[in-house]
Amino acid sequence: MYVKRYLSPLIVYYYSWRMVLFSLFTGSGAIFVYSYLGWQWVAIPWLPVSLIGTATAFFVGFKNNQSYDRSWEARKIWGSITNHSRSFGAALRAYAYKSSSQTSDFDKDVKIMIYRHIAWLYAMKMAMSQRTSWEHKDRASKRQRNTLHGKQVSCDIQIEKYLGASEHAALENKKNLSTQILDLQSQHLAKFRHAGGVDAYQHISLQGIISNLYDEQGKSERIKNTPFPRQYATTSNLFIFVFLTLLPFGLLPQFVELGKEYLLLLIPFNMIVSWVFLFMEYVGDISENPFEGLLNDVPVATIVRNIEIDLIEMLQEEKVPQKLQPFFGALF
Amino acid sequence: MYVKRYLSPLIVYYYSWRMVLFSLFTGSGAIFVYSYLGWQWVAIPWLPVSLIGTATAFFVGFKNNQSYDRSWEARKIWGSITNHSRSFGAALRAYAYKSSSQTSDFDKDVKIMIYRHIAWLYAMKMAMSQRTSWEHKDRASKRQRNTLHGKQVSCDIQIEKYLGASEHAALENKKNLSTQILDLQSQHLAKFRHAGGVDAYQHISLQGIISNLYDEQGKSERIKNTPFPRQYATTSNLFIFVFLTLLPFGLLPQFVELGKEYLLLLIPFNMIVSWVFLFMEYVGDISENPFEGLLNDVPVATIVRNIEIDLIEMLQEEKVPQKLQPFFGALF
Amino acid sequence: MYVKRYLSPLIVYYYSWRMVLFSLFTGSGAIFVYSYLGWQWVAIPWLPVSLIGTATAFFVGFKNNQSYDRSWEARKIWGSITNHSRSFGAALRAYAYKSSSQTSDFDKDVKIMIYRHIAWLYAMKMAMSQRTSWEHKDRASKRQRNTLHGKQVSCDIQIEKYLGASEHAALENKKNLSTQILDLQSQHLAKFRHAGGVDAYQHISLQGIISNLYDEQGKSERIKNTPFPRQYATTSNLFIFVFLTLLPFGLLPQFVELGKEYLLLLIPFNMIVSWVFLFMEYVGDISENPFEGLLNDVPVATIVRNIEIDLIEMLQEEKVPQKLQPFFGALF
Amino acid sequence: MYVKRYLSPLIVYYYSWRMVLFSLFTGSGAIFVYSYLGWQWVAIPWLPVSLIGTATAFFVGFKNNQSYDRSWEARKIWGSITNHSRSFGAALRAYAYKSSSQTSDFDKDVKIMIYRHIAWLYAMKMAMSQRTSWEHKDRASKRQRNTLHGKQVSCDIQIEKYLGASEHAALENKKNLSTQILDLQSQHLAKFRHAGGVDAYQHISLQGIISNLYDEQGKSERIKNTPFPRQYATTSNLFIFVFLTLLPFGLLPQFVELGKEYLLLLIPFNMIVSWVFLFMEYVGDISENPFEGLLNDVPVATIVRNIEIDLIEMLQEEKVPQKLQPFFGALF
Amino acid sequence: MYVKRYLSPLIVYYYSWRMVLFSLFTGSGAIFVYSYLGWQWVAIPWLPVSLIGTATAFFVGFKNNQSYDRSWEARKIWGSITNHSRSFGAALRAYAYKSSSQTSDFDKDVKIMIYRHIAWLYAMKMAMSQRTSWEHKDRASKRQRNTLHGKQVSCDIQIEKYLGASEHAALENKKNLSTQILDLQSQHLAKFRHAGGVDAYQHISLQGIISNLYDEQGKSERIKNTPFPRQYATTSNLFIFVFLTLLPFGLLPQFVELGKEYLLLLIPFNMIVSWVFLFMEYVGDISENPFEGLLNDVPVATIVRNIEIDLIEMLQEEKVPQKLQPFFGALF
Repeated sequence: MYVKRYLSPLIVYYYSWRMVLFSLFTGSGAIFVYSYLGWQWVAIPWLPVSLIGTATAFFVGFKNNQSYDRSWEARKIWGSITNHSRSFGAALRAYAYKSSSQTSDFDKDVKIMIYRHIAWLYAMKMAMSQRTSWEHKDRASKRQRNTLHGKQVSCDIQIEKYLGASEHAALENKKNLSTQILDLQSQHLAKFRHAGGVDAYQHISLQGIISNLYDEQGKSERIKNTPFPRQYATTSNLFIFVFLTLLPFGLLPQFVELGKEYLLLLIPFNMIVSWVFLFMEYVGDISENPFEGLLNDVPVATIVRNIEIDLIEMLQEEKVPQKLQPFFGALF
Repeated sequence: MYVKRYLSPLIVYYYSWRMVLFSLFTGSGAIFVYSYLGWQWVAIPWLPVSLIGTATAFFVGFKNNQSYDRSWEARKIWGSITNHSRSFGAALRAYAYKSSSQTSDFDKDVKIMIYRHIAWLYAMKMAMSQRTSWEHKDRASKRQRNTLHGKQVSCDIQIEKYLGASEHAALENKKNLSTQILDLQSQHLAKFRHAGGVDAYQHISLQGIISNLYDEQGKSERIKNTPFPRQYATTSNLFIFVFLTLLPFGLLPQFVELGKEYLLLLIPFNMIVSWVFLFMEYVGDISENPFEGLLNDVPVATIVRNIEIDLIEMLQEEKVPQKLQPFFGALF
Repeated sequence: MYVKRYLSPLIVYYYSWRMVLFSLFTGSGAIFVYSYLGWQWVAIPWLPVSLIGTATAFFVGFKNNQSYDRSWEARKIWGSITNHSRSFGAALRAYAYKSSSQTSDFDKDVKIMIYRHIAWLYAMKMAMSQRTSWEHKDRASKRQRNTLHGKQVSCDIQIEKYLGASEHAALENKKNLSTQILDLQSQHLAKFRHAGGVDAYQHISLQGIISNLYDEQGKSERIKNTPFPRQYATTSNLFIFVFLTLLPFGLLPQFVELGKEYLLLLIPFNMIVSWVFLFMEYVGDISENPFEGLLNDVPVATIVRNIEIDLIEMLQEEKVPQKLQPFFGALF
Repeated sequence: MYVKRYLSPLIVYYYSWRMVLFSLFTGSGAIFVYSYLGWQWVAIPWLPVSLIGTATAFFVGFKNNQSYDRSWEARKIWGSITNHSRSFGAALRAYAYKSSSQTSDFDKDVKIMIYRHIAWLYAMKMAMSQRTSWEHKDRASKRQRNTLHGKQVSCDIQIEKYLGASEHAALENKKNLSTQILDLQSQHLAKFRHAGGVDAYQHISLQGIISNLYDEQGKSERIKNTPFPRQYATTSNLFIFVFLTLLPFGLLPQFVELGKEYLLLLIPFNMIVSWVFLFMEYVGDISENPFEGLLNDVPVATIVRNIEIDLIEMLQEEKVPQKLQPFFGALF
Repeated sequence: MYVKRYLSPLIVYYYSWRMVLFSLFTGSGAIFVYSYLGWQWVAIPWLPVSLIGTATAFFVGFKNNQSYDRSWEARKIWGSITNHSRSFGAALRAYAYKSSSQTSDFDKDVKIMIYRHIAWLYAMKMAMSQRTSWEHKDRASKRQRNTLHGKQVSCDIQIEKYLGASEHAALENKKNLSTQILDLQSQHLAKFRHAGGVDAYQHISLQGIISNLYDEQGKSERIKNTPFPRQYATTSNLFIFVFLTLLPFGLLPQFVELGKEYLLLLIPFNMIVSWVFLFMEYVGDISENPFEGLLNDVPVATIVRNIEIDLIEMLQEEKVPQKLQPFFGALF
């Protein structure tokens, strides 16, 4: 998640240079064919180009809207994970509170369960950082991911730290780690109840929070594992390619009218217009998958760390981890 | 659900060839009537054509938006089914946990109920794979379905496997299989409670999850059995047909102006524009019914299998089924 | 609810003929005034007409969107009624399950309550089939309603059948029948609990389902009794009337340019454009009130019958009513 | 809430006459300056006018959409108030039901609480009928309010009637009457529980309904007390004023072209276009605040009365109040 | 939150003067280059400018819509905080009600908890008034904040007042104050239950309200700490800058046609159009972050004070704080 007021010019440049090259090529191509080859008929009427432009605009707009909705939904889900985590911590500790003396034993259980919850958070983070077949995998994206995430402690280590080595090993071959951690949590709660740590109603109430966590886990996996429908995305790309290929030819008559000596003006103007449309499309493209680990995505690492801090502060422990700081203007 | 970054060119071709033929026909027709028959008045003014284009664009856009919403809602419902299934498994096992020795008997009940839940999932899958009167039933769609679903074990067999033969037989004549499976589940829970497997509060809490499952079942059936309103869909089709029939005639004056020798350029440009509009419409069309079992639909089989794996792993069984793999770039 | 892939041409014709007549009239009128009366100034500039067209398109589009949302919301509500009904049936039977021998008495109570629930469904259906002051009441609509609903058993008879004659009589003068049936249900549940049929927690849980049913009832009544805001609907109509009256005059200059001998072409083209706009408006108009009992409305009778079947199958009764079949391509 | 199919012509006239005057003035002004003063340059190019028109259309459309959403949300809230009220009445009576003889005392408590609930409804109605600083306060609106609401019994009297004089007096100086009535209700429920009227679980369940009522109260107050953001509303007004002032000058070249003798045609056409845009804006304007007590608003009085009837019928009282009838085609 | 019907002209002026300067500059620049330098080719064709205008309009419209949604969502969250606070107050007091004599002690606990809740509100207000890196930080905004908030008692003092000095000190170094206050609340509730203040079910029900408060806290923090995606915001700014720079050149041909002597008319018309687009963009810009503490934001201080009043009135205390009054037409 980028957190400065405006994207830095460097980022804009970095996003734009391919687009500029493409439009320089189409613009010069049109002039070359018209002037040097003398194929005057390539100065096609504007009407068909404009109709394609309309359809393109619709699709790009649609994609941008839905990309925004997807990333906002993803942000909401991780917001809910924050809320349910705090609720779980506060409720578990409150329910386990005992006025009598046998507390110390229960306190240990509470701590194990809250630690296991943090392990679940890191398991979720790990699941979100897998690569899917529709995400950006070009070299630049990989470099970006390395820069942003390279210095973090790996999820695996964090999970082992909070789960304990033996439990971690037992879960190794499970298909879905997070699901099984919550199942362990449920089993532990059941034992905790039988040991007298919580009563029957509190048990059900805490199990209800586990259900809520299953909900948010499932929602997060849904967005991670369901792409923006590829038929819409592909169409958006196809249309923009067709449109921008025809554009300089459709602009030709306008600039021919202006006078032969100004024909070269077509190139910068075609470039500006093409850049605008490609950039518009690209903005949707980089917002489509909110868990790619890139500049504009949901800052899962930051959120997980903030919850970790809140829970560890609830346990009154002395060593509280540090908040993550923006890096190149982004939280990640 | 298609999972590669872009639809393969083959699929685009496969979707497009009818559209190209149609537009070649209208384009040549317009030229034939204008040049050979010499009916110059068919070069009609652009204005009425453009007005119809506006109405068409509105309807197609509306249809595309709603189709997306329908398929996203369907995906959300099956996400919820995942979440409630995991909650059900974890909670049932936790509630049935006993510190005393009588466990083994209760364990059998738990296993039967979790198996019955998997049977319910397959019953839901079967219900979603029925054909309705408004779904695509052309030969190509049938071939696609056969290819994608041909190798799966039939739902009926899976249901029998997880439900047991006698229970399966007793439900045979019921109008709605899934409804009655959840009713059986409720009855079993009641007996389980009376046998001491769960206490009174846990019983109500588990029955609450059954209610949630009824909710998701009903939502899924609603989308399956309620088409995108046919008055909107039909209108969208009518308008696009009227618009594309008039289009080449409306483009005629533009190309006539360009010079008689370039008149044939009308044909490719009419084709590109027609293709763009038809493709736009078609993208909505194939996203309209999320449970048709085609390339872009909700991957019910994959989701059901993933839940199956999670539940069977919870039961610590040794033989865990395999995840489904993408086939021709699609999960199904 | 229409369930074929496309509206039959007959329905399109039946919806369209008035529109065609209207546009023939305005088109001929424009030509008459221009050619025969020779008032050349009626060939007004296109600009003001186009501005009104824009406003009209906005309103018609807005109305279509909202009409769709209203009918989809209505469908969702009746989907929820289905889900809560099944939950109610399954939970009530599960909670009333007893291992001891006194069952038979409780079974009777359960049956009475489930029957009363079906009576509530028919009371809801009856409430939805009242006519309000803003619904279509032309002769054609009445004829359509008679054809679609004429053969159904009247709700009154069904209510009496499922409620019993004495209870039915006691409710006769109540302002809102459904509300009072659910109140009776609540009273019966209370007595059932005191008789030992369910325990204290189960009682509250079942009463919670009654609350959910009150919610869905109220939502359904809200859509039934609150029209799409008349100020928006009226404006949409006013604008389309103004626009289509000016349209042929705005088109005149275009066709005059084409040549005097082709002036009559104005009539078919004005007709097509007018038809497109009127049809677009009409599609929203017939989707606006989802409980009118017409071709495109929520199929309340079908849904009620399906729930009836599910509940009666739960009771293991032998005589299960038949599903309703599509009639002239529509469920109703 | 207007309940006839179309707004009566009188209302349209009443809404429109100021707009017509304004546009007559701008139209004549343009002609006067152009023809009599001979300032030919006032026939400005259409392009800048059209750009402003686009921005205006966006803002007016946005405002109309949001106004609709606000009034539909308000209607939903009052629908929920209906549902929770019925649930409260039915549940309270069911929970207080006793098989033993001590009923009569509890019945009195139930009646007091249901009466207090009706008092809460009237307190809510009173809160909704306060005037805020952004509502319509012109003379015509005041006259309309007087006509529609003049004959109703004042809320104060109803509250006193249902609350009893002493309780009413005790609440007199509270800042938020409805909040404190629900607090009284909570206190009464607590006493009722301690007296044995309901048990511990029922108490919590009923208190849960009180929480729901607090929710709906707060939502209703939110819409009442938060205007449609004034920065958007003001911008919409500014833009429409700028646009309609420039419009006749932008239309001038069109009508000049038509011929000098037809220049006066500008006046009616400018009028129609201006009226369309102003009317469009006005429709949003009068739908913006759903609790103004005017023609198109949420019919709070009618809803409150309907709930009153339902609750009093539940109590089996003999004197049931009458439903409110539409007045000049509107429920209020 | 601005509460007068229209923004005062002063505010419009204050928002607009920079825009006017910018457009005067671009307009004069275009004329200077065209007339004085005689570079006639700068009178570029309208088409590319119009295409960029379309993309700009899309982005600005999108931003305005989402800004509105963000601020309405923020308002809803604080509405929910109101509702849950009232529910908490009413339920806590009702549950703690005892018929016996030991009340006075419990009353003290109730008061401490309700006071702590008010402290939580002020902690939330304080969190919302931190500045983030994407909010407006120009001198004018700072001055506005000082004027609006300068006279309020600082949150810190209020928190200390309601929390008590010792508890306040203990929380000083916590990373998230509000989270830890709710945790304290949970601990207090647990002790209260063990002391007999509430029973087991009431305890769980109250802890459920704490969970709801965690939810609303997290939602509010989400909107505060997640900016409107900067890639969309930056694009909107870039496009409007490109568009308005090209605009006067695109308008040149229109005014050249009008006649050389009227060329200067370009300046006012360019100004009006530029102002309209910049103002439109700005309206979204100032609605984007609903917790900036500026004129159009969610009036957190007012809402917190209203809840404070309601809760203190529930406690029947004599000294009730005053409602906040609008200041320069705004609640804040």
